[in-house]
Amino acid sequence: MDVDSRLPSLLKKANIARISGNSLLVGDRRRYPWEHTFVSCASVDDIARAIRDMVTQGGGPLQVAMTTMRFLARQIHDGTVSASMNTFLDAARLLSAARSTNTTMHRTLDSIVVDIASWYQCGDMKQAYGDDFVAFVDTVVDTYEQRFDADYDTMSDIGSTTIADGEGILTTCFAEHSFILSLVKAREQGKRITIYVPETRPYLQGARLTAPALAELGIQAYLITDGMGVHMMAEGAVSHYMTAADLVAMDGTVVNKVGTLANAVGADYYHIPYHVFAMSPDITKAGLSDIVMEERDGAEILRFNGVPTTLETMVGRYPAFDCIPASLVDAIITPRGLTTPAGIGALYGVATAAGQGDIP
Amino acid sequence: MDVDSRLPSLLKKANIARISGNSLLVGDRRRYPWEHTFVSCASVDDIARAIRDMVTQGGGPLQVAMTTMRFLARQIHDGTVSASMNTFLDAARLLSAARSTNTTMHRTLDSIVVDIASWYQCGDMKQAYGDDFVAFVDTVVDTYEQRFDADYDTMSDIGSTTIADGEGILTTCFAEHSFILSLVKAREQGKRITIYVPETRPYLQGARLTAPALAELGIQAYLITDGMGVHMMAEGAVSHYMTAADLVAMDGTVVNKVGTLANAVGADYYHIPYHVFAMSPDITKAGLSDIVMEERDGAEILRFNGVPTTLETMVGRYPAFDCIPASLVDAIITPRGLTTPAGIGALYGVATAAGQGDIP
Repeated sequence: MDVDSRLPSLLKKANIARISGNSLLVGDRRRYPWEHTFVSCASVDDIARAIRDMVTQGGGPLQVAMTTMRFLARQIHDGTVSASMNTFLDAARLLSAARSTNTTMHRTLDSIVVDIASWYQCGDMKQAYGDDFVAFVDTVVDTYEQRFDADYDTMSDIGSTTIADGEGILTTCFAEHSFILSLVKAREQGKRITIYVPETRPYLQGARLTAPALAELGIQAYLITDGMGVHMMAEGAVSHYMTAADLVAMDGTVVNKVGTLANAVGADYYHIPYHVFAMSPDITKAGLSDIVMEERDGAEILRFNGVPTTLETMVGRYPAFDCIPASLVDAIITPRGLTTPAGIGALYGVATAAGQGDIP
Repeated sequence: MDVDSRLPSLLKKANIARISGNSLLVGDRRRYPWEHTFVSCASVDDIARAIRDMVTQGGGPLQVAMTTMRFLARQIHDGTVSASMNTFLDAARLLSAARSTNTTMHRTLDSIVVDIASWYQCGDMKQAYGDDFVAFVDTVVDTYEQRFDADYDTMSDIGSTTIADGEGILTTCFAEHSFILSLVKAREQGKRITIYVPETRPYLQGARLTAPALAELGIQAYLITDGMGVHMMAEGAVSHYMTAADLVAMDGTVVNKVGTLANAVGADYYHIPYHVFAMSPDITKAGLSDIVMEERDGAEILRFNGVPTTLETMVGRYPAFDCIPASLVDAIITPRGLTTPAGIGALYGVATAAGQGDIP
C-alpha cells in the first residue's frame, strides 16, 4: 500500500523533512495549522536544535533523523562535512540526545549507521564519495522508510478491525500514522466513526494537529478539553480509547503524553477497551521502575501560544508523560500483531541470562 | 468568625457586588487576575445580562442576587422603579433565569422575596418606602448573608478536619468559600498542605481564580493542566480530592464542572478520598435522570482568552458539567455536617407521599 498518499499532509514524508539545495527543511508543527512553514537547517547542529525546540514532535524526529542521513551523504559528497563514519555517528548521537525519550529514533539511527558503515568495508570503494555513495545511503534509508510504512500498514489493518461500526473513539495528543490509517481503513470498510480529540495542553497537539488532520481526511471529529474524555464515556458518546505510545516497557507498562492515564482509568471504570499502537517495546525497560519520567519547566503551562493563562508569579508543574499500568491496557497493536500487554515480552523476546533477546 | 476578613480579595462580598451611587457594581472575574474591575449595572436587566455574560460565576451570582435586593429597595425609595412586590418578584425570576443551574441562588431569592413581602403585610407601613424600608430590606439580606457565612464557617471547620498534615490536595475549577476557608483553617491548625489546581479550560477558573486566590493567602499551590490530576495521584503527590458542587441530587449524585468526573474516577482507582462541599441537596432532583445537563456552544472551546486554539472550521463540544455517581464520592460536607452521599437524603429530609420534606 502507498502509505504516504493516504495520510494527511502533516504526516506526508516531504512535509516532515525534505532536502532543498544545501538545506534540510523541517516542517514546523509549532505554528500549524495556521501556517505551513519549514525551519531551514544548514547543519546537524541546526537540526538537533530544531528537534530540541519542538519544531517537530511525535514521530517527526524519526523522519527528520532518517532524512538527516541522506542529507549528510550529500554534504560528504559536496565536501561540506568530513568524509568519515564519525560524521554519521556524531549526528546519530546528537539527534538522539535532542529527544532522549524517543527510543525508536535512537535504535533506527544506530541501525542505519551500521548499515552505512558497510560502505567502508567494500575495499576499493572506501574512499569514493561520488553519486554512488549518495545513492547507497538513499537505498539504506529507503529500506527503513519502507519498513516503517509496512509496519504502519500492518498495524492499521489490525487497528481498523478493532473498530466497530458507529463507534465514538477517544484519543490523546497526536497518535499519527497507525492511528490515522486505522480510521481511514475503518471508514473504507464502511464503518461510521466519530473521533473525540482532547486539545492536549499545554501545546495543543490535539487541537492543532489531530483535529485538522482528521478534518482534512473528512473524518468526523469533535474537539474537547482535556478534562472531558471521561465525560464522553459516561454519556455513552465514546466506546473506545486509542492512543500511540512514546514507550512500552517489557511488562506492558505504556508511556504516553500526560492525560493518557486519566482516560485509561476512565476507560477501565466504564468498561471501554483501550488499545495502544506501538512499533515495539523497549527491551531495556523491564517495567515502571526503569522508566525515568521527563519533568519539564512548569512555566510552560502558564502560557498558551505565548499568551499568559494567569499571573506570571504562579507556579506550574509539567510532567510531560504518564505511565499507564499494563492492567489498564486491553491490547497493544504492534507490527507483529495484537497482543495483551503481558504478552509483549514473549512477542518481542524477553532478555534472558543467555543474552539480550530479539532486538526488533 | 469574621468570614470576609479571612477570604481572598476575590471572595470578599464588596468585591463580588457593591452598590455605588445609582449603580450596582459586579466584580468582573473574566479579566481577573490581570484586572480588578467592576461592571456597572443601572438596572436588573443589566445585572441579569452581567450574570449571563459570565461577569461573575460560581457563588458570585448568589451574592450579586442578594445585593440586587438591597439595590431595588434603594431604587424603590428613590422612585426609580415601581414601588411594588412585583419589582422584587420580577427581579428574582429574571436573575434565576440568567443562571438556571444555580439552585442555591433561586431558593435564596424566593425566600428573601417572601421575607420582604412581610413589609406589605404591616398595615400602615405598606405604602411607606422611606429610609425604614431600605433598612428593613438590608436587615433581611443581612440575615441571609450571615447565615451563609455561618454555613461556610461550619463547613470549613469540618473540611479542615478531613485534611491531614503534609497532604497534597487536588481540586477542580474554583471551589470558593468553604474550600478556601478549609485550607486556611488547616494551615492554622499547623498542617502543611500543597494544592494542585487544574487550569479548568475553557475559561481557566483554576488558573485565573483559584491559583491567584491561594497565592494571595500564601498557600502553596501548583497549577497543572486538566489532564494531570490523575498523574499527580499516581506519583503520590495528591492524596485528597476536594471540590464544590453545582448541585447534589437526593441520591448523592454530584454535579460539578466538567473534568470533575475524570478526577473522581482517578481518586477511586487510587483509593484517595473525594470530599464535596455542598450547601444542601436539591430536593427536586431524586437522581441522575432528573438532572438536565447544560451543553454550551462547542465553539467556546476553540478559543482561549479570545485567541484561537485551532482552525475556526473545527467542531468543538462543550458539556459544561459532569455528573459524578454517589459511589465515587466519599463524603459530602454540608452545613448540617459531614455525610455519606447516600445519607444526604436523610440529613435533609426525603420527599415522601405525605409532603415535600424539610426544605433547607
